Amino acid sequence: MTRPILAAIDTAAFEHNLAKIRGLAPESKIWCVIKARAYGHGLEAALKGLGSTDGFAVLDIEDAGWLRDHGWQGRILLLEGLFHENELSLAHQLACDVVIHCENQVRWLEAFDALPHSRLNVFLKMNSGMNRLGFKPDAYRTAFHRLHAAGYHMHHMTHFANADQLDRSPTVDEQLECFNAGIDGLPGATSFGNSATILWHRNTLGDWVRPGVILYGASPTGRYSDIEHGGLNPVMSLTSEIIDTQELAVGERVGYGGVYEASEPMRIGIVACGYADGYPRHAKEGTPVWVSDPSMKNGGVICPIVGRVSMDMLTIDLRGAPKANLGTGVELWGAHVPVDEVAYQSGTIGYELICAVAPRVPVKII
Amino acid sequence: MTRPILAAIDTAAFEHNLAKIRGLAPESKIWCVIKARAYGHGLEAALKGLGSTDGFAVLDIEDAGWLRDHGWQGRILLLEGLFHENELSLAHQLACDVVIHCENQVRWLEAFDALPHSRLNVFLKMNSGMNRLGFKPDAYRTAFHRLHAAGYHMHHMTHFANADQLDRSPTVDEQLECFNAGIDGLPGATSFGNSATILWHRNTLGDWVRPGVILYGASPTGRYSDIEHGGLNPVMSLTSEIIDTQELAVGERVGYGGVYEASEPMRIGIVACGYADGYPRHAKEGTPVWVSDPSMKNGGVICPIVGRVSMDMLTIDLRGAPKANLGTGVELWGAHVPVDEVAYQSGTIGYELICAVAPRVPVKII
Repeated sequence: MTRPILAAIDTAAFEHNLAKIRGLAPESKIWCVIKARAYGHGLEAALKGLGSTDGFAVLDIEDAGWLRDHGWQGRILLLEGLFHENELSLAHQLACDVVIHCENQVRWLEAFDALPHSRLNVFLKMNSGMNRLGFKPDAYRTAFHRLHAAGYHMHHMTHFANADQLDRSPTVDEQLECFNAGIDGLPGATSFGNSATILWHRNTLGDWVRPGVILYGASPTGRYSDIEHGGLNPVMSLTSEIIDTQELAVGERVGYGGVYEASEPMRIGIVACGYADGYPRHAKEGTPVWVSDPSMKNGGVICPIVGRVSMDMLTIDLRGAPKANLGTGVELWGAHVPVDEVAYQSGTIGYELICAVAPRVPVKII
Repeated sequence: MTRPILAAIDTAAFEHNLAKIRGLAPESKIWCVIKARAYGHGLEAALKGLGSTDGFAVLDIEDAGWLRDHGWQGRILLLEGLFHENELSLAHQLACDVVIHCENQVRWLEAFDALPHSRLNVFLKMNSGMNRLGFKPDAYRTAFHRLHAAGYHMHHMTHFANADQLDRSPTVDEQLECFNAGIDGLPGATSFGNSATILWHRNTLGDWVRPGVILYGASPTGRYSDIEHGGLNPVMSLTSEIIDTQELAVGERVGYGGVYEASEPMRIGIVACGYADGYPRHAKEGTPVWVSDPSMKNGGVICPIVGRVSMDMLTIDLRGAPKANLGTGVELWGAHVPVDEVAYQSGTIGYELICAVAPRVPVKII
C-alpha cells in the first residue's frame, strides 16, 4: 500500500497487558478474548503477543481452526458455542471448549455420537440478569443435569451487564447472587469475570477470567481516565500523514457542510484517514490528533480536528504545528492519543473503534 | 463461515442504478467511484455490476492494479493521485488517469521521464471553497500551465462541499462560479458532479460525473426520504439470524447498561450481529430490524431494537413476531430496511455503514 495510513500492532504491549492481568487475577486461569480478529488487531499478532495465556476465546470456529493451524495447542473456547449442529464434530476435532446457551445446542450435544463426551468441555451459560444469551436459573439446572448425565465435562458461566458501573441494575452483586444460587450444589469450575470485573471487582473473579478490551490497552468504560493509572499499554497505533495543506482566510469554511469557519487566518492539514478507514465520522471538532515535530520536547504536538471527517480524509488545525507539511506523520490513536479519547469525542467506546479498523488499512506487527 | 451473518451484493441492482444515473446525466461520461472496496461491497461485485461504466475511480493504486488484473481495459482515475513519487511509473504502466492536487505532485510530474507525457491524463484539482484537496484559483492556473507545458493531457476538477443542501456555504453556485472563473480560457474537459449534484443540480454536470453513494442505492444526504422516489435500488443486504430468545418479566432489563426495561411481559430475540460486524453501536432503541415470517403479507415484519447494540449481538422486541424463533432470518438493512434509516437512527449516513461492514462478515455476490 502506498497510501500512508498504517495500523501498527505492538506485541510487547500485549505481553505487558497480559502480565498485568495475571497480577490482578493471580488465582484465575485466563481466557484471552480475541474475537472480531482480536478486536481488529489480527489473530497473528494476538497469538504472538498473548501466547502465554491459558486459553483463547473466539466467536467463529474458523478462528479456532486458524489457531490450531498456527500451532496453538492450548485451550480454545467458542464463546457462543455452535451456530449449527454440523459444527459439532469440527469443534470436537479441534478440541474446543464450547459455550452452551440455548435448548437447540443442548439437544445437539445430547445427540452427538462421538466418544467419549467427557473429552468435551462445556461452559453452560446462565442468564443471570443481562437477558442476552443463556438459560434462566431453573432452566439452567435442567440443562446442566441433562448435559452432565450425557457425560460432558461441565463448567458454569455467566456475563455481567454492568461490571463497569456501580449504580445500574442489574448490578454485579445481584447477578452474582443469582448465579451462585443457580449453581448451588452443582459441580464444575466457574467463569464470569470480564475486563471490568478484573479491574474493579477483584474479590469475585471465579476460576476462569475473560479479559477482552483491557488486553488491547483500552478501557471497559470507554473513558481513558478510568484506566489511566492502571498500567495498561495501548497495543494499536493508527498513524498516517498530511497529504495536503490549505491556508484559510477569515470566514472560509472546511469540508462537507462547511461546518468549521476560520475566525482568523490559519493553516489546516489534510490527513489521509477517513471514516472508510474506521476513524469515526462522529468525531467532534477538537478531537485530538498528534502531529510529529522532532523539535518539540515530546516529539510532537496535539492538533485538533476541524470540520467533518470525510470518507478518506480528515482536517486538522495546524496553528500549533507551524513546521508540519506534506508528508508529516500523524497519530490518530496510540501512545500519544488514547483510543478511548477519540471514542469519547465520538460518543462511543474504544472497543468500537479498534474493531472497526478497515481492511484497506495495512497492518504491521512490531 | 457458520455464524449466520451475511452481506449479499446484488449486481443487478448495480446495473440498474448505473442505468438510472446514465439517464440523469446523459451528456456526461461516468466515473463510477469504487474506493473503499467499492464502499464495502467489494471490487469483484463492482466490476461485475458496473462494467458498462466509462471508468472507475479509486483511491489506492493497488485497486487499479486489481482492476487491470481482472480484465478492466477502460479508464481508471486515481482520486487523490499519487501519495509518493515512486508510484508514478506504476500509474503510467497501468494507464491511470491521475488527480493532481498539490505542489509535490506537480513537481513529480514535471520530473517524470517516461514518454510521451501526453499519454497521461491529469485531472487537476481546484479548491473552489471546500478547503480539502486542491489548488486555489491563482495557484491552479500556475499549476495548469506548468503541467500543460510539460505535455500532459489536462482536465479540470473540483469537489462540492454542499451539493446535498441548499442553505450551506459554500453553495454549489458559489463553488461553480469560482471554478469557472478559475479555468476561464484554459483547454480541457471538466469533472465536478458527485452523487448529490447528479440528483439535484442537473443543469451543471460537466463532462465527467463521479457518482459514489447512489451507485450503491443510498442517499447522499443520509436521509432515505430524499431518494425514496428516485428509483435507486439497494445493492447490499445485510442479514443474519436469531440465535437465542429470552422471556422478560416486567422490570427486567436488557444488555449492557440495562438501558431497556420491560414494561410488560415480552419476548426478545438475540440476533447474531453487533458493532464488530459493522452495525452501528449508536443505533437507538427503535431502530428497525426486519424479521422473516412467511405467513405475513410482505414475508416479514419490522421488530425494533431494544437495549444497546453489543459487540457480536443485538436484541430486538419480538412482540410483533410471535412465530420468530432460533434460526429465524432477519434483515439488518437491504430491501426491507433502508441502510439510511439505520444510519439516521445512529446519527450518521448510510455511506459510513456500508463502508464499515467488517471483514468477518462473509460476502456473497448474487
